[in-house]
Amino acid sequence: METTLIRSLYRETEKFVNKDIKISGWIRTLRDSKSFGFIELNDGSFFKNIQIVFDEKLTNFKELTKLAISSSLSIEGTLVLTPNAKQPFEIQAKKITLEGNSSSDYPLQKKRHTLEYLRTIAHLRSRSNTFSAVFRVRSIAAYAVHKFFQERGFVYANTPLITGSDCEGAGEMFKVTSMDLNNIPKKEDGSVDYSKDFFGKETNLTVSGQLSAETMALAFRNVYTFGPTFRAEDSNTARHAAEFWMIEPEMAFAELKDYMDVAEELVKYVINYVLENAPEEMAFFNSFIDKTLFSRLDNVANSEFGRITYTEAVDILKKSGASFEYPVEWGIDLQTEHERYLTEKVFKKPIFVTDYPKAIKAFYMRENEDGKTVAAADLLVPGVGEIIGGSQREERYKVLEKRIEELGLNKKDYWWYLELRKYGETKHSGFGLGFERILMYITGMSNIRDVIPFPRTTGSAEF
Amino acid sequence: METTLIRSLYRETEKFVNKDIKISGWIRTLRDSKSFGFIELNDGSFFKNIQIVFDEKLTNFKELTKLAISSSLSIEGTLVLTPNAKQPFEIQAKKITLEGNSSSDYPLQKKRHTLEYLRTIAHLRSRSNTFSAVFRVRSIAAYAVHKFFQERGFVYANTPLITGSDCEGAGEMFKVTSMDLNNIPKKEDGSVDYSKDFFGKETNLTVSGQLSAETMALAFRNVYTFGPTFRAEDSNTARHAAEFWMIEPEMAFAELKDYMDVAEELVKYVINYVLENAPEEMAFFNSFIDKTLFSRLDNVANSEFGRITYTEAVDILKKSGASFEYPVEWGIDLQTEHERYLTEKVFKKPIFVTDYPKAIKAFYMRENEDGKTVAAADLLVPGVGEIIGGSQREERYKVLEKRIEELGLNKKDYWWYLELRKYGETKHSGFGLGFERILMYITGMSNIRDVIPFPRTTGSAEF
Repeated sequence: METTLIRSLYRETEKFVNKDIKISGWIRTLRDSKSFGFIELNDGSFFKNIQIVFDEKLTNFKELTKLAISSSLSIEGTLVLTPNAKQPFEIQAKKITLEGNSSSDYPLQKKRHTLEYLRTIAHLRSRSNTFSAVFRVRSIAAYAVHKFFQERGFVYANTPLITGSDCEGAGEMFKVTSMDLNNIPKKEDGSVDYSKDFFGKETNLTVSGQLSAETMALAFRNVYTFGPTFRAEDSNTARHAAEFWMIEPEMAFAELKDYMDVAEELVKYVINYVLENAPEEMAFFNSFIDKTLFSRLDNVANSEFGRITYTEAVDILKKSGASFEYPVEWGIDLQTEHERYLTEKVFKKPIFVTDYPKAIKAFYMRENEDGKTVAAADLLVPGVGEIIGGSQREERYKVLEKRIEELGLNKKDYWWYLELRKYGETKHSGFGLGFERILMYITGMSNIRDVIPFPRTTGSAEF
Repeated sequence: METTLIRSLYRETEKFVNKDIKISGWIRTLRDSKSFGFIELNDGSFFKNIQIVFDEKLTNFKELTKLAISSSLSIEGTLVLTPNAKQPFEIQAKKITLEGNSSSDYPLQKKRHTLEYLRTIAHLRSRSNTFSAVFRVRSIAAYAVHKFFQERGFVYANTPLITGSDCEGAGEMFKVTSMDLNNIPKKEDGSVDYSKDFFGKETNLTVSGQLSAETMALAFRNVYTFGPTFRAEDSNTARHAAEFWMIEPEMAFAELKDYMDVAEELVKYVINYVLENAPEEMAFFNSFIDKTLFSRLDNVANSEFGRITYTEAVDILKKSGASFEYPVEWGIDLQTEHERYLTEKVFKKPIFVTDYPKAIKAFYMRENEDGKTVAAADLLVPGVGEIIGGSQREERYKVLEKRIEELGLNKKDYWWYLELRKYGETKHSGFGLGFERILMYITGMSNIRDVIPFPRTTGSAEF
């Protein structure tokens, strides 16, 4: 008999009522009385378990009642509706075959475990309710991102992770080498001889695909990256990981407002797609992780995001009378406390803050007419603060060149980036969205370590 | 006026006939007579250009005729059908605005360039016909992969790239470190003090997500990875890159034949999806890159893949009378010449070769009853040889443990991998598909450097 997935039993129940079916999966709970046994079985295809009822007519009844949690079974039986029970249906088993044993020291027993403990058994935690929900939502959200961009004709750009330039300027980089660290080849002057390394030069792990993505936007018009990026920053917080996934769209013939339109549409699309395609998981998060989740997400999905300039934001904050740890003055980088005040207390919805002071933003952002600010915009959302940063890019060769020089960067490192401005420069814009940031927002999980299957953070690269 | 994409003009022409529209894009070619000019404009949204006709009524007629290739323009005009011309329609321009200048030394002039030369201008090559086609097909094929698995309920598993184990056993690894290579911290015995490194231990770039994916398959049943992997192998061939993308599905409660069913379905799905969604690009490849492309892909999409055992394959090769560089004997690893002979001369369609000798396959492959072979299968396709490798995984704790010991591997490194066999072992299977391999097959491009936007190979990490 063909094996049916539990997902199908829940989604298309009517097809299976009173029919004989075969399923397979792992025991989540098992209890028995003298002549009956009940198993909650999960087969991985669906968030919910299915109840199996078996009785002493089965020749292996006794052995079954002694099985450890997480043993795997295949089961033949009949699906029967149970209108008076809390579950909609159950399987009355005719035959249960043990596929694989588990052991009584299986760590995920029914009692609640802390998230910290579950991180130490990352190879098993996907079998818990919480992580089964988190990682399925991660998968669905990732697909929503691809679907969004592909439906709009954006080209998925696989930009390189190993980079020969250290000019991305977005943070500390990991070095990549094939040299023997116990015996590094040296030049006569005692410095590392990179000509002996795999690539014949110093290489690092990328902190952003943006500069490469720009080359492709100036060919395909609209492109996006979606892949791993890295930061070797020693920041042991709940929001930082050394390896994380970024989405970096880049659009030619697009101004700052066009980026904001696309970013707003994207955020709403991903939220709605996950709500529609993972209703069980989302209900679980709303009940057990964050009781404000649905109202928070509804607010984002249904408001028109606000748009104010940095200068207006500073005015609002200064006039607010609120006391902040970091005093507000034109020119400062907004801190999370400021961002949250603006989006939670003042606007009560997501807002874009635009036109930041040039001095606190990256060299590639387009200088505004005022000579003081750049055409940048950050998206702030209630409960978190910034989740997206983006800008119009400086497309004017001479302005970009001057900016590179002003900041003491090495022009030679940017030869190909500058050439994009020489051969058919166009205005273009783009943004970066940390995938884990939006996952934390959508699931209510408060630590980045809990939205990545095997997180890499300072001092930790287990599994 | 709203800007319209050239893709829409081609795909929904009837909506725009004799209408005024606005477009923007880059000049691919420009020619003029005394009072007329013709521009082939490409806006990145579509493989084909659109013809713009302009005349001396435009006040900037003279300047326009002098523009360099790749200058960017926005154009207002009327779309007019041209039933007697080679293109189906053209734009009669009413207003042409220069957005950004190009320069007369723009490297992509109309003449043909070698693929080798184009690699040296990887920041511009996406603007050529060939690479515009390759990288759009890459994007569409990537989406096809996600769509295939998501439609079947597979969970997308983002396995880590930085790995603390060197036990993946699939090839040479790159080291990842935050230490200063000019001044590596040493222990008293003179060896590297990894406790001072970012993760407090030695770390590498992954060569395969499989072992991590298995942990998730034993929770979600069906999962797939799709992300970058790395090999620090000094092999300067047309088929090897140091950084490439792999697709690694892993399925619980699945035997070898189930993996083969899914792999066959996947390959056909991706080919058909690309043929349907990139018809212009595929026609270009079939005309200019490989004239056998369509017949080769049709053959794959429409045959039922053959399945023979390794032992049968060796028999066929030995009896064939063909002379091979590497002599055939039971126990050898099949070489590309053998693989191609089988799939091209004998079967004339894709075939799975199954049940390889244990000694030439990885430790995690499931041992068959005969004690000599393992439940592995490679997919061989005409024109290339192997494009997929996979196996049923050894789910029996004791057999796996013994195999790890036999091969002299360190059991401690595999504690979590072994635990999967302790807590609800199930038969499970999976495979690996090199994304660039299938892209080369689909596009006819013969060098892996030409299907990756910015390739990383021995001695080369440019851009």
